[in-house]
Amino acid sequence: MSGTRIERLGLIGVGLIGGSLALALRKAGVVGEIIGCGRNPVHLETAKRLGVIDRGETDPAAAVQGADMVVLAVPLGAMREIMEAIRPVLEPETVLTDVGSAKTSVIRAARAVFDTLPPGFVPGHPIAGTEKSGVEAAFPELFRRRRVILTPVPESAEKAVSRVQSMWEACGAQVVSMAPEHHDEVLAATSHLPHMLAYALVDTLARRDDSQEIFDFAAGGFRDFTRIASSDPRMWHDICLANHDALVKMLEAFSDDLRLLADAVRRADSRFLLETFTRAKQTRDAYCDGERES
Amino acid sequence: MSGTRIERLGLIGVGLIGGSLALALRKAGVVGEIIGCGRNPVHLETAKRLGVIDRGETDPAAAVQGADMVVLAVPLGAMREIMEAIRPVLEPETVLTDVGSAKTSVIRAARAVFDTLPPGFVPGHPIAGTEKSGVEAAFPELFRRRRVILTPVPESAEKAVSRVQSMWEACGAQVVSMAPEHHDEVLAATSHLPHMLAYALVDTLARRDDSQEIFDFAAGGFRDFTRIASSDPRMWHDICLANHDALVKMLEAFSDDLRLLADAVRRADSRFLLETFTRAKQTRDAYCDGERES
Repeated sequence: MSGTRIERLGLIGVGLIGGSLALALRKAGVVGEIIGCGRNPVHLETAKRLGVIDRGETDPAAAVQGADMVVLAVPLGAMREIMEAIRPVLEPETVLTDVGSAKTSVIRAARAVFDTLPPGFVPGHPIAGTEKSGVEAAFPELFRRRRVILTPVPESAEKAVSRVQSMWEACGAQVVSMAPEHHDEVLAATSHLPHMLAYALVDTLARRDDSQEIFDFAAGGFRDFTRIASSDPRMWHDICLANHDALVKMLEAFSDDLRLLADAVRRADSRFLLETFTRAKQTRDAYCDGERES
Repeated sequence: MSGTRIERLGLIGVGLIGGSLALALRKAGVVGEIIGCGRNPVHLETAKRLGVIDRGETDPAAAVQGADMVVLAVPLGAMREIMEAIRPVLEPETVLTDVGSAKTSVIRAARAVFDTLPPGFVPGHPIAGTEKSGVEAAFPELFRRRRVILTPVPESAEKAVSRVQSMWEACGAQVVSMAPEHHDEVLAATSHLPHMLAYALVDTLARRDDSQEIFDFAAGGFRDFTRIASSDPRMWHDICLANHDALVKMLEAFSDDLRLLADAVRRADSRFLLETFTRAKQTRDAYCDGERES
């Protein structure tokens, strides 16, 4: 783990993901000082009190000064602004990564901000989270046995990629690399589309006259199904804008399939219904074999 | 609990629901003999070995003979056939209830089978279940603190309604009454529609070329969201046909709302997205207050 050591971590954004990363790195004993940056001094105080960060700064430039590793753990909509703020003070050998749920938009923002991308720049995305947010929800095991996808750009230095990889591995994650466009498609399918469906379902039911009764009679399956609709609206707003193209494509594909299924229900097409449900069940069962249902 | 005592339970269908009911009644000490009926003698042997039933019969008529309580715990598509089979031997004072997830179709089937509905007939639906099926998955706590909806018909004798209510209360359930049509609407919204969405989502992804990779990168939210897609395809096929009208209405309402959301994503309508996500989160959070997230 010798290459893993981070002397000073500049953590921009101290919420669920940023906070959990800080706690995991501390627990692994691979980090020296952690400087947290956020807009709200009260939140920074909380993060300090919880032992997540050593020092809080409301100015991103102040938080990255002297850092050998900088992690941007802010909503996607804030990435560009943060990059603008840290550009003047970012040292050439500093590693710069992020945790954004969409990757082409982060790279686009970086290209707009930096004349040439710094060799330390390695976009990344830990596939982990809960429907909760905020530093109070952070815990050091969040990334254990979870995937982290890195989407290096041609400018990314090999050494920087390997440092970001080591950082996540120290948190117990499995790290893989992928083209940014491919990442965005995969995430649109497995995460962004399901969130849209959960939000849309809860909203459809919420706007009914009998919504209170509806929710009273919802069983466990409904609770599981809609858990992700309790996620942070601002974060998901940003994801919709940032991963716009891939998400629109997935929404269209799903809507087409749902129309086919609704038509089959309408005409009571036994064969279509049985085939679709059976194929889905087999896929889901196969995929969950060996997965912990936590 | 004196009025609760069941001397002989004729249990038609010994799967997750029927088996759990039998185990719960035994645990509560309110049942004498349990005669289970199923098409497959091997399954009946398993049910006997697991202590769920005392005797197995493959003929429904044989299973209800001498029973003071008969519970139909078979897929909706089998209800009518079972009623036909037991009609000649059903005694007038026997209480007859069911556990079907749609209620107007069961009542329609009963009206088609019986010249006049027996006064012991009390349609019911326990709002409980898991994505698993079969008697091996049965457990006595399945109905604890869950709702059971009874949808009595004008012909239902008050005494029969109260016996069915007592039976479910002995299992720890909370029993409420509702008009059958209203039950079917509420369940279409909270259960049948979400199952369609989960099946459709998994199927959409399963038919992609990169489906294996897609599922590899799915996180916990996706597992929760799609758990109900592991439900029994035959049972859900039957529900689609049985609750046809209410489900078609819900599918149309949802598809319209999803189209509005997709349009908002397409045109990057920040306000619409934030408002929708915020409303959904508030609703879901409020509804889950005080609920155990099990």
